[in-house]
Amino acid sequence: MAVKRQKWSKHFGEWFRDVLINAEIMDYRYPIKGCGVWMPYGFKIRRNLLQILRDLLDSTGHNETLFPLLIPETSLAQESAHVKSFEGECFWVTHGGFEPLKVRYALRPTSETVIAPMLKLWIRSHADLPLKMYQVVNVFRHETKATRPILRMREVEPFKEAHTCHATSEEAEEQVQEAVELYKRFFDAVGVPYVVSRRPDWDKFAGALYTIAFDMLCPDGRTLQIGTVHNLGQNFAKAFDITYETKDGGQDHIWTTSYGISGRGIAAVLIVHGDDNGIVLPPKIAPTQVAVVPVPYKGQEEQINEACRTVAAKLKDAGYRVELDLREGLTPGNKFYYWELRGVPIRIEIGPRDLANGEVTVVRRDTLKKQTYKTDDVTAAVQTFAEEMTHDLKANAAAWMNEQIHRVDSLSEAKSLLAKRAGIVEVQWCGKDECGHSLEETVEARLLGFPEDTKEKVDGKCVVCGEKAVNVVRVALAY
Amino acid sequence: MAVKRQKWSKHFGEWFRDVLINAEIMDYRYPIKGCGVWMPYGFKIRRNLLQILRDLLDSTGHNETLFPLLIPETSLAQESAHVKSFEGECFWVTHGGFEPLKVRYALRPTSETVIAPMLKLWIRSHADLPLKMYQVVNVFRHETKATRPILRMREVEPFKEAHTCHATSEEAEEQVQEAVELYKRFFDAVGVPYVVSRRPDWDKFAGALYTIAFDMLCPDGRTLQIGTVHNLGQNFAKAFDITYETKDGGQDHIWTTSYGISGRGIAAVLIVHGDDNGIVLPPKIAPTQVAVVPVPYKGQEEQINEACRTVAAKLKDAGYRVELDLREGLTPGNKFYYWELRGVPIRIEIGPRDLANGEVTVVRRDTLKKQTYKTDDVTAAVQTFAEEMTHDLKANAAAWMNEQIHRVDSLSEAKSLLAKRAGIVEVQWCGKDECGHSLEETVEARLLGFPEDTKEKVDGKCVVCGEKAVNVVRVALAY
Repeated sequence: MAVKRQKWSKHFGEWFRDVLINAEIMDYRYPIKGCGVWMPYGFKIRRNLLQILRDLLDSTGHNETLFPLLIPETSLAQESAHVKSFEGECFWVTHGGFEPLKVRYALRPTSETVIAPMLKLWIRSHADLPLKMYQVVNVFRHETKATRPILRMREVEPFKEAHTCHATSEEAEEQVQEAVELYKRFFDAVGVPYVVSRRPDWDKFAGALYTIAFDMLCPDGRTLQIGTVHNLGQNFAKAFDITYETKDGGQDHIWTTSYGISGRGIAAVLIVHGDDNGIVLPPKIAPTQVAVVPVPYKGQEEQINEACRTVAAKLKDAGYRVELDLREGLTPGNKFYYWELRGVPIRIEIGPRDLANGEVTVVRRDTLKKQTYKTDDVTAAVQTFAEEMTHDLKANAAAWMNEQIHRVDSLSEAKSLLAKRAGIVEVQWCGKDECGHSLEETVEARLLGFPEDTKEKVDGKCVVCGEKAVNVVRVALAY
Repeated sequence: MAVKRQKWSKHFGEWFRDVLINAEIMDYRYPIKGCGVWMPYGFKIRRNLLQILRDLLDSTGHNETLFPLLIPETSLAQESAHVKSFEGECFWVTHGGFEPLKVRYALRPTSETVIAPMLKLWIRSHADLPLKMYQVVNVFRHETKATRPILRMREVEPFKEAHTCHATSEEAEEQVQEAVELYKRFFDAVGVPYVVSRRPDWDKFAGALYTIAFDMLCPDGRTLQIGTVHNLGQNFAKAFDITYETKDGGQDHIWTTSYGISGRGIAAVLIVHGDDNGIVLPPKIAPTQVAVVPVPYKGQEEQINEACRTVAAKLKDAGYRVELDLREGLTPGNKFYYWELRGVPIRIEIGPRDLANGEVTVVRRDTLKKQTYKTDDVTAAVQTFAEEMTHDLKANAAAWMNEQIHRVDSLSEAKSLLAKRAGIVEVQWCGKDECGHSLEETVEARLLGFPEDTKEKVDGKCVVCGEKAVNVVRVALAY
């Protein structure tokens, strides 16, 4: 099935910035660059999305916790690769009141070095392991690149970060796989398609053995990293000397992992399903699932409003989140625009003809397909529409993305596809760093890494050096 | 009814610190003073309490939002009384990466000056009012007093702060009353007794017209401020020039209020119901409402465990949050201690005699009263126990606090009661600042303010100057 790109794909950046403010999701006009305000409607979307994530984590033995924001510089500096990567982009607190601090504090850019000193207190023996925690917080990066609402913030909010501790390397590996599966289930639940790639060594999280990342494709052909999973090995455990008593009475350092999804996980849903009329929300996470709008007719205003009230009440009783839009001074067209912009999945219109026929008109947000139903059947109709829409949003998004993944055999083809922002390009690679860097430079794009979602055997040649390839590698223009 | 003070009232500070860590609520050993870690069990209690607060706010037209943490110094300085009060206790961010910032940022000590610039963008006309928002965040105060876990933190977390905007002074006044009612409902829901007082002018929130505060009484006779409601008048509106178009086409500054409850609202529940065995949780907010513990008997271990499984499953089906404690290597006594420490409202024990009689033993956490029931009746028994316990916790806490409120006519009586930490003392006052200050100095305690919860007419004399009193005033040793 061929899926048409939306018109707005050509001016995606503007579309996203405008829709965030127009649909009252985030107001980005705060006096500090890179900081935004989650507005009431955006906050409700965020709540529903985070609830899915929390349910997934809670049901798999992760405990929610909350650690402090401030990190003493001495803690941050304890893992050398980590501090080297982060110190240049931390916000630094240097004064408490009028007094300079003895040790300055970083605003957490991520919490490995916040959690480590506590793990040292908590973990004594193998009986304390595994330990699986998460928190939903704000983190801070003093970005020097151009900031963008939600996509590249200085205050990243929310940031869901999970941290786990294990007795063995194998258990840490298994945890990485569990995390990848959890994130797949999360993005699948909201219809966001992705590729999962093992990042090249030079692009892994600072302090990790390796990083596996989820990338989605934006309508402008650029990828957006929307989730990462890190195997931290014993790096942080050794830096903070976190040991446990093994079953046979010895001492060993623990093994840790961490994995995170930021506000980009919310942006992904808005971006991937959006269209020229605004955002489109999967019913499961829509703050308002059904908007009921009267189409008044002279002399029948009150009967029509009353029919709307009845239908709205009926759907609320059936458990739907419903808004009855009886606002005065707005035309039905104004109201349709209002609810479409905000991505409300289903609109119900009742006009004079509907009233006369004992019917309602049901409209799906994504297709704008209208259909009339007997008023008695409205609950069943809404259920069917919601199910179909959930399915179609996911299927269409996946079909569109799959069309933008291109397998090619030469640098020139890769370069030409990327130059016209055609999406994700897969080539074969020998795995050597110098070929990887050379690939990135030649095609002027970023190496996303080896596929983690497809385990494919290759027998071709590296597109750079022509030697035997070890794997396919993905390349894309990336946000 | 006379209510006995717990033994631990004499060493309340130690009790609280110990119970927080032993019951795995907060670990206060983080390397930065005044910052703590909400541990999994504490976080669950916190979630349940915040849910009550969110439900109350959501159902009264407050929208949840999220504003940035960082405040440019230029914003903070815009309301003069506000900055004067807060600048000496702000944490200051001065560097982004390796570069000094042009304007330094305060970590929010409260969010009036974060919200104000956005209100200026959002509010155009009377149709935009009222505007009622809240957020649940961390706020920061560089406390110079001794910090205490939850009670006096440098990172205050959580802080639920509501902010509202109105067209008239009257509507702002009404909002203050709504806020007071909301907070009463919140504390009533969790059985925390309080007094509500209008703070003296010198103790109001910086930038407010006046402040109404909720205080509870700790077992050591000190009061703890657990909630505040501020009428901000047009102070912030004028400082930030936030105006709206009135109905008749003119322009006026808006009127604002703000009100907050911090982690102390959680501490209050732990403190007021706690006893020598640990915390005691009202069933509504207990992460685990029922713990099922087998009391094994040789040869019958598996039958007893099986009976426990059946009962636990039955209660789960009935909607209770249940833990089945089949841990090995712990005696029943160890397990009783474990669940009592964590305040689990109801324990069910099944031993050999229970098994033989087709019964279970049900134990209430607060009274430790045991009663046996037929296994078939366990759900009804748990429901009755939970209802009785909810009622009794609240009634006992209120009865105890009421006994510690003393009305006296002389400074010497007031001083002597406060010296022995007898609770809250009420005296009559002329309302003049100098008498208020003199009162505080003489009795070496803090003036909580005029009662807002009882509207009493007085005809006595000021305990300080002997002139005509205008009101009763409350005095107490305060945290």
